[in-house]
Parts: sequence; C-alpha cells; structure tokens
Amino acid sequence: MNARPTSESVPAEQVFDWLDAEAARRAEAGLTRKLRPRGASTAELDLAGNDYLGLARDKRVAGAAAAATLRWGTGSTGSRLVTGSTELHAELEHELARFCGVQAALVFSSGFLANVAAVTALSGAESAIVTDKYIHASLIEGCRLSRSDVAAVAHADPAAVGHALATRRKARALVVTDSVFSVDGDLAPLTELSAVSREHGAALLVDDAHGFGVLGEGGRGAVHAAGLSAEPDVVTTITLSKALGAQGGAVLGPRRVIRHLVETARSFIFDTGLAPASAAAAVAALGVLKTEPHLPAKVLASATRLADLLREEGFAVSAPRSAVISVRTPSASGAVGWAERCAEGGIRVGCFRPPSVPDGVSRLRLTVHAGLTESDVDTAVKVISEAAPPGATS
Amino acid sequence: MNARPTSESVPAEQVFDWLDAEAARRAEAGLTRKLRPRGASTAELDLAGNDYLGLARDKRVAGAAAAATLRWGTGSTGSRLVTGSTELHAELEHELARFCGVQAALVFSSGFLANVAAVTALSGAESAIVTDKYIHASLIEGCRLSRSDVAAVAHADPAAVGHALATRRKARALVVTDSVFSVDGDLAPLTELSAVSREHGAALLVDDAHGFGVLGEGGRGAVHAAGLSAEPDVVTTITLSKALGAQGGAVLGPRRVIRHLVETARSFIFDTGLAPASAAAAVAALGVLKTEPHLPAKVLASATRLADLLREEGFAVSAPRSAVISVRTPSASGAVGWAERCAEGGIRVGCFRPPSVPDGVSRLRLTVHAGLTESDVDTAVKVISEAAPPGATS
Ligand SMILES: Cc1ncc(COP(=O)(O)O)c(C=O)c1O
Ligand SMILES: Cc1ncc(COP(=O)(O)O)c(C=O)c1O
Repeated sequence: MNARPTSESVPAEQVFDWLDAEAARRAEAGLTRKLRPRGASTAELDLAGNDYLGLARDKRVAGAAAAATLRWGTGSTGSRLVTGSTELHAELEHELARFCGVQAALVFSSGFLANVAAVTALSGAESAIVTDKYIHASLIEGCRLSRSDVAAVAHADPAAVGHALATRRKARALVVTDSVFSVDGDLAPLTELSAVSREHGAALLVDDAHGFGVLGEGGRGAVHAAGLSAEPDVVTTITLSKALGAQGGAVLGPRRVIRHLVETARSFIFDTGLAPASAAAAVAALGVLKTEPHLPAKVLASATRLADLLREEGFAVSAPRSAVISVRTPSASGAVGWAERCAEGGIRVGCFRPPSVPDGVSRLRLTVHAGLTESDVDTAVKVISEAAPPGATS
Repeated sequence: MNARPTSESVPAEQVFDWLDAEAARRAEAGLTRKLRPRGASTAELDLAGNDYLGLARDKRVAGAAAAATLRWGTGSTGSRLVTGSTELHAELEHELARFCGVQAALVFSSGFLANVAAVTALSGAESAIVTDKYIHASLIEGCRLSRSDVAAVAHADPAAVGHALATRRKARALVVTDSVFSVDGDLAPLTELSAVSREHGAALLVDDAHGFGVLGEGGRGAVHAAGLSAEPDVVTTITLSKALGAQGGAVLGPRRVIRHLVETARSFIFDTGLAPASAAAAVAALGVLKTEPHLPAKVLASATRLADLLREEGFAVSAPRSAVISVRTPSASGAVGWAERCAEGGIRVGCFRPPSVPDGVSRLRLTVHAGLTESDVDTAVKVISEAAPPGATS
C-alpha cells in the first residue's frame, strides 16, 4: 500500500508553483512585502529603525569598526570554538558583563541566534517552558526546537505564568519573556515574573533587546533596572544591532550558564563568529554610552512627546515606555498606504501587519532615537496626521 | 491530581545546579570545550579556519569593508523589510545571482539563518523532507522547525533518497543536502540527487557553504559545477563567512523562491539585516574571485598534497575533494591532546568530537587556504606527525 497522495510526474518547472498560489493569497489579503533598498543619505527622518542612540553612524563607533577590520580582517574565519574567537570578542564579552553587572557574557552573530541558544540550552525534554504569548519570533523558534513542554500564556500576566508553572509536568522550568515587546514597546512585569518564577523553582530568561541601551541606569537595560541582572536564576539576552548600532547578540548571566552555552548550544557551536568590525563597533558604542549616560533619557523624552502629540490628534497610540510606540490602523492595506504617504512626506515609519503583529491588528510602528529634536517630532506628527487614512482617529 | 514531580522550594542558587552536573559528565567523557581567543598576529599556520581563499585579510576586501562602515554606518539599523536593506545589500544580491547564474539571491545575517529560512519556507506541514543524515546542524534546525515529515537517510545515497521519496505520505517534498560535508570534506552526489528528486517531483535544496569559492568554474561552487544552479527546482544556500572571508549567508534560486522567503521566512523577517561592512566585504571578495579565477585550484592542490603526505605517514585521511580533510583519531581526548600539541608546534588545526561528528568518531579537521605554500604543507605534515598520539597510524 502506498500512502503517498502525490503524482510523480510534476515537471521541474512546476515544483514551486505552490509558491505563486501562496503569493496570490497574500496579495489578496493586503499582505505583500517588498524590499526597498535605501541609499546612504540620511535626509529622511527615521522613525523606523532600531538605532535608538544614533550610534550606527557615530564617527567614534564607525572609526573603531573600520580600524578593527583593517587589523583583524573582515571575518572571524571560523566558529567561536575553532578560529572565530579573537581578543576583540573576549573584550566585548568582558565589557558587556561588567556594564550589566553579570558574571559572564557570550557573543553571537545575531540576537536571533543568541535567543535560540539561550532557550534551547536552558530547557530540553526534561523541562517545561512558560512564555508570554507575545515573545519575539526568535524565542519562539527556540521553544519549538527545545523539545520541552511549552505553554504560551496571556500577555504580561504573572498570575497566568504562576498557574502554568504550578500545573507543569516537568521538574525543571524556564520562564521566557521580552522585557520590551517589540511591536508596542510595552514592558513586561519583570519584578513579578521573577517572584513567581522563584516561587516555583523556575529560571527566568529575559530578552532585553529593546531595553538595553534605553532603559535602566545609564542604559543598562530593563533587567538591571529591575535589580535582577546579577541574580543566580536569571539570564538576559540582548542584541548588538539596536541601541549599540552594530550587529550580533549576547547572552548575559551566571558563569555556569555561559559555560553551558559554549559547550552545548547548537546555534553557537555551528555558526561562524561575529565579524571583527561588528564586535569592535559594539565595544566602541558601549564606550560612548558609558561616557554619555544621559543619552537614554533623551530617547524616552522623545517617545513621550511623540505619543502625547499623536494622541492629541486622536490616534490610538500605545503608552510610551521605551523607544517604540505604535499606532493602530484600520486595516493591513490601510497601514501600507499610510506608511507610504509618510515616506513621501520624508518620514520613514514601520508598518507591521500579520503575522508580525501578535494580535492580528495592523499598526504603524514608530521608533525614536536620541538625535531627534523637538521640532523633528513636531514635523513627524504633522506628516503622520496628514497621511492618515480614514478611520485612523477615534 | 497534580502530575508535577517537582519541589517548589528550589532555592534560586540551585536552579542551575543541573548545568554543573552536565558539565561534570562532559568532562568525564573528554568532551569539555573552551574558548581560546586568538590575537591579531598571523604567525601560526592556520589549518583550522574556513577563510579558504585568504580573503578575510586581503587589503582590497578589508579596505572596502572599512570604507562601507564609514559611509553606511556600523549596522543596518533594522530588519531587511524595515530599514535594514541598503543599496549595498541589493548590490551583493545582484552580484551573487549573476556570478552563480541564478535568477535571484537573498542575503542573511548568517549562513545558519539562511539555511533555517530555506528549509522552513520550502517545506511545511504539507511537505515531506528527505535529508542526508550528515547535513549541517543549521539545516537540521530548519527541519525541526518545519513541521514536515522528516526522513534522514544514509549518507550520500541517492537510492535511499529515492526510496524515502517514493514512500512519503505528503504530496510535496524537499530533498536537503550539503554539497561538501563539513567534517570530512566529501562531496554529495548532486547529479544523482537532482535526478532522483526530479523523478519524484521533489525540490532540491543544496547547502554549498564549503563548495562556493572552492569548487566549480572560477569558484562558482558545487551546484554550478553540476550544472544545476539555474534549474527551476533547485535552491542553493551559501555562506559569506568562509571563502568570501566575511560574515552572513545567502539563498540563491528562482525568483519566486526568493520572493517567498522575503514574505514568509521568519529567520529573515525577524532578524536585523547584515552589517554594511560585511556586505561590502563580500562584494569585494567576489570581485577578487572574479579577477583571480585560479585561486580555487590552488586550494585543491594544497588539499591533495596535504592528504597524500599524511596518508604516506600512515594516518586515516579522508579523500581530498575540497578545502577540508579530516584525520581520524583514536579517542576524543586523544584528539584534544593532538590538536594542542599541533598548536604548540605553530599549527592551528580543528578538533572535532561528538556531537560535532555525525558518526561519533573524533577527528582532526584540517583546512587549507590559497595562501599555503608547498613548504607550509610540508611543515604542517611534520608537526602533525610528531604530535600524533599512539594509535593514530594504522
Ligand atoms: C525582541 C527582539 N529580540 C531579538 C531580536 C533579534 O535580534 P537580531 O536582529 O540582532 O538578530 C529582535 C529583532 O531583531 C527583537 O526585536
Ligand atoms: C555546511 C555549513 N552550512 C552552514 C554553515 C553556517 O554558516 P555561518 O557560519 O555563516 O552561519 C556552516 C558553518 O558555519 C557550515 O559548515
């Protein structure tokens, strides 16, 4: 008996026909996505990128990266355990750990792979995972790879986490959350999550990708602000690609967690080390942040001004708690048109539609950075308001 | 009834105690791994890295990367669909596609995430996946994330692939293989795999990470060498971190495959774009390869010489088909000691132990690069032979 419902005679040209059918379905739903490569000019006002401190184009940071490329070469040439660890990687790890007050840090080629490593290495078939249902896609991929029992519970709800922990079937448990949720910029209740995790003997893993460099004392992040960074049962991940303006990611935590990642995490062991230029950029950006600890406060002030003014115009704006705010849009295609008209007006904004929005509601996603002036914000509000589709104000 | 076999009273300090227990087990089995950051000097002879063409330290490549950092900034500032696509990324994609004779290319922040994207986006719950059982960890992670029926069949065995395809339960199918297997450097039978895939209406995905830049006309890779790169049912992944000396990865294939990845692949959509310096390095490295198309032949000549001389010394050496050869070692701890003594003798070699070896046999992994002279190879053979543990020769 042959259970296969396929015809063997699909011609080679038709093997990927199903992709066209799916593309047509996406187009019908207003969910087409297109790459729009940008030029090097910075004439547009950027309310879309994650370069929150404006360090990606800082001369000190770029100069350090350029020098590192000439000194160390353009690639790390191998996985971290073979030839891909340079003294530059070690320096970055040392500086990140010191800045955040943790025992140790481990650098990855992306925040995505750092998250996959942290989730998979700290869970496993003997473990339960309890996550906020709005966590970042990279954490979700980690959960799917973990072989653990995974429960995704209500958003920002420590009681729901407690219930899932109390009814788990595995001895070990890992609680996973973003500190700042990437679509609306809202914050996780870290203090409560830590308390409930501890009550149930679970470890807590926090993705501080959008908190690091923006929240906490001198930009030390949301985990540090909650007084949790040095706790023995807390692990933090960050990315080097947002506030630090570079590329890469890192896991911060107890020394034994870092050792465990080095020895077992597949997305660490089987990936080429971060390029020297990106490692050097992150070291230099951290140096700038240390000498200019007021930068993060500027970011929050801009976010608050932007949110307040947009709310005055009648838009449905998220509460400004980080560098990210969002504005609800009546429809996915309405969001696309709105973002396009903003771009024509010289303002680059993000347009988030399913599946990039956890609740299915399309949004403009606006980010602020330390370089924005009050008049930049005023201009942005004017352009965004004039570009709004019908139904965007309440 | 409470099914949870846990105590709720684990103190915070003990939550990660299980990591120490696992570390002790690894130590007992000789499987401890440690990072050893290297300096910027290149005094050691490198037979461990993947910089096969020696381009990571090429002045033209490093100069282009440094200039790009100063012009474009140190990071791409966002995901590719938001602010992370620059004209530099578009240029790299155009040049890669042209060089390999494919319709289109898409650049990722790592080869790891390119592989995850290609596997997941081209399979799914409606699909079967048939893989060689020795494929790279990043492809395996893609399979695990795919929700497909996955069959991992005998190594380099088209008949086994054909059998798995013939007995599959899903209409669609994707065959997945490395072109050059990363541990032994042996080659997949691409012509036969393409034939058997086509016979059964399956698409073929080839990871050419170690073939690109080394094999085929002017380094166009193993897929190009097999005449398959432009086929409508074949997709190729490469990394920018090996022969191109940079960082990042790419998927090459039919235009509709690339469009599908842009619109649906989670490891593309939810990851920050590649740093400008790395994109520029890859463009420049490709330029060098185009003007010096004889570089790949040098690599293969060195590999052949190295393998021949080691075999003459009595070692169990893999056949030299690429830049990678391996030498079997009697035990995992024997491999570590051997590699350490090579390093003391000025030769950096790779040491691969479980779980990085698919068959559980530990090996020295040796790589060659275009800059090696005959006398470098002779020196390496002398040092490796003198450092060998008892039982390494037959
Ligand atoms: C919350 C969050 N975590 C992780 C990542 C992944 O980091 P990276 O882009 O450095 O891979 C992102 C965004 O890209 C993010 O928004
Ligand atoms: C066969 C193979 N595929 C993919 C990768 C991943 O590429 P990258 O290191 O650029 O992430 C590697 C090695 O790192 C590899 O050896």
